Amino acid sequence: MKIGLDIMGGDYAPKATVLGAIAAHKVLSAAHRLVLIGDKPTALSLLEENNYSPDNFDFVHTTQVIGMGEHPTKAISQKPDSSIAVGFKMLKDGELDAFSSAGNTGAMLVGAVFSVKSIPGVIRPAMATTVPKLKGGLGILLDVGANADCKPDTLLQFGVLGSLYAELIYNIQSPKVALMNIGEEEEKGNLLTQATYPLMKDTKLFNFVGNIEGRDVFGSGADVIVTDGFTGNVILKLAESFYMITLKKGLKDEFFDRFNYEQYGGSPILGVNAPVVVGHGISNPEAIKNMVLLSKDMAESGLIEKMKQAFQ
Amino acid sequence: MKIGLDIMGGDYAPKATVLGAIAAHKVLSAAHRLVLIGDKPTALSLLEENNYSPDNFDFVHTTQVIGMGEHPTKAISQKPDSSIAVGFKMLKDGELDAFSSAGNTGAMLVGAVFSVKSIPGVIRPAMATTVPKLKGGLGILLDVGANADCKPDTLLQFGVLGSLYAELIYNIQSPKVALMNIGEEEEKGNLLTQATYPLMKDTKLFNFVGNIEGRDVFGSGADVIVTDGFTGNVILKLAESFYMITLKKGLKDEFFDRFNYEQYGGSPILGVNAPVVVGHGISNPEAIKNMVLLSKDMAESGLIEKMKQAFQ
Repeated sequence: MKIGLDIMGGDYAPKATVLGAIAAHKVLSAAHRLVLIGDKPTALSLLEENNYSPDNFDFVHTTQVIGMGEHPTKAISQKPDSSIAVGFKMLKDGELDAFSSAGNTGAMLVGAVFSVKSIPGVIRPAMATTVPKLKGGLGILLDVGANADCKPDTLLQFGVLGSLYAELIYNIQSPKVALMNIGEEEEKGNLLTQATYPLMKDTKLFNFVGNIEGRDVFGSGADVIVTDGFTGNVILKLAESFYMITLKKGLKDEFFDRFNYEQYGGSPILGVNAPVVVGHGISNPEAIKNMVLLSKDMAESGLIEKMKQAFQ
Repeated sequence: MKIGLDIMGGDYAPKATVLGAIAAHKVLSAAHRLVLIGDKPTALSLLEENNYSPDNFDFVHTTQVIGMGEHPTKAISQKPDSSIAVGFKMLKDGELDAFSSAGNTGAMLVGAVFSVKSIPGVIRPAMATTVPKLKGGLGILLDVGANADCKPDTLLQFGVLGSLYAELIYNIQSPKVALMNIGEEEEKGNLLTQATYPLMKDTKLFNFVGNIEGRDVFGSGADVIVTDGFTGNVILKLAESFYMITLKKGLKDEFFDRFNYEQYGGSPILGVNAPVVVGHGISNPEAIKNMVLLSKDMAESGLIEKMKQAFQ
């Protein structure tokens, strides 16, 4: 199995990404081959600095880098030899089984949709984030920003994608899928959630448990929380800010520790034909390592095949 | 000045409301007369229990109560002698200068719009919540649930309402008004925020400072955060849940202490022709006291007149 990593992506690349690759290699089995995509001489010198043999990796040298602030669509088309564009080309051509990057999120989304493309039947892929649960365990929230405006059938599909992810990656049997809303009752909500509720209630594609409110995000009522990308993005960033506040104030707690994105590695893009993970821009080596491992888990779990079957 | 209080509203009414009325009376001057609306015999016996003279209050006896779970529009029309319906009738007739209740939020919204009505020119009134700032001071967020679906011109008006509130109630000169969004750049967002940004950028009605993201809610970048009632409600409840988590875990901190709703009393309904405040359902006497004082401050500040002028 070939696991691709963009070593140019992220605020602390290529140092953090190469160190993360080393850390990932140490826990990967011989069946997994890590492919480092980016400036090869830099990668080699970083490996040498760290006394780690380059024989442990494959290398694909690229000459361009997509910056964090660049326009995604323009960058992808104008920089065909960027690490992100090359990574997606390899993923599309079957030369990689998974691809991840802590670089430009928009470029990762555009690259995924343009190269490996959406699973047939999927209207819009979504980005998911990990939600730590107060009573332990993890859930996911999607979409967190890929689709600022959503329609009811898109949200219904997010339920399918999220449910399969929770089942195959978090090993949750029959994951509880809830709709983010502003009241628990069926008739509550805005036009979008009011129209989505009946679709979810009638579906046999996942285990719908009804509406949940902002106060229930960290509760055990739902394993998968479905929302539009606008609301999901606001929730994600607000939750991050709370975590940062507890850190700054030195408020130590096991629950808040589980907000640390480093341990989750990144946000999967769900609904495309291959495992793709986008890391946080500020990823350190630990985060990069876990991003790589998540993309590997997605590849090994058969998640993409299951998703294809669900949308047949 | 006559300040109306619904003594039947809230999970702990009428005990919490009558005790709250006593606490409020102790800090009000002789120029303010507190009018207790609800079951008079119950109020009198609670006052007697607490050795507080009924001469300190006016009483308006009512025979009906709107329950917390009742359908707002039906309840208001079918219970004309409920404390909420009577309170709004008095407010409309000029027999009260302000009215507040910790009862059914929907009934308070419907009652306000049906009785004292929206200020001419205001498309939709909004509910606001207090936002404690990390570096001290307070801001407001609106709408937090009165309007699940909003249009750009509605959001623009929320900016006007919120700015005047921040100026007159929090004494902030030229309050910084920001649009809740999923990116800082002008072109970011969903269809609603993308269409709202240019309206806010061009307005001379308030001091627009641009987009802010979920991570900036508690920062000093904005005094007034404008959003649709769906997103605002999710933010409000998510923030409340974080506060509850810090309480449960015994994480004490001055900043989190300032999340305690009790000290703010409640959410003002902005954009109607009179001061109206809705308290939290779980209001204790301290919260009721502060709800009454906030409605008094709104009446004394000339807020409603300023709003009328702004929409002329």
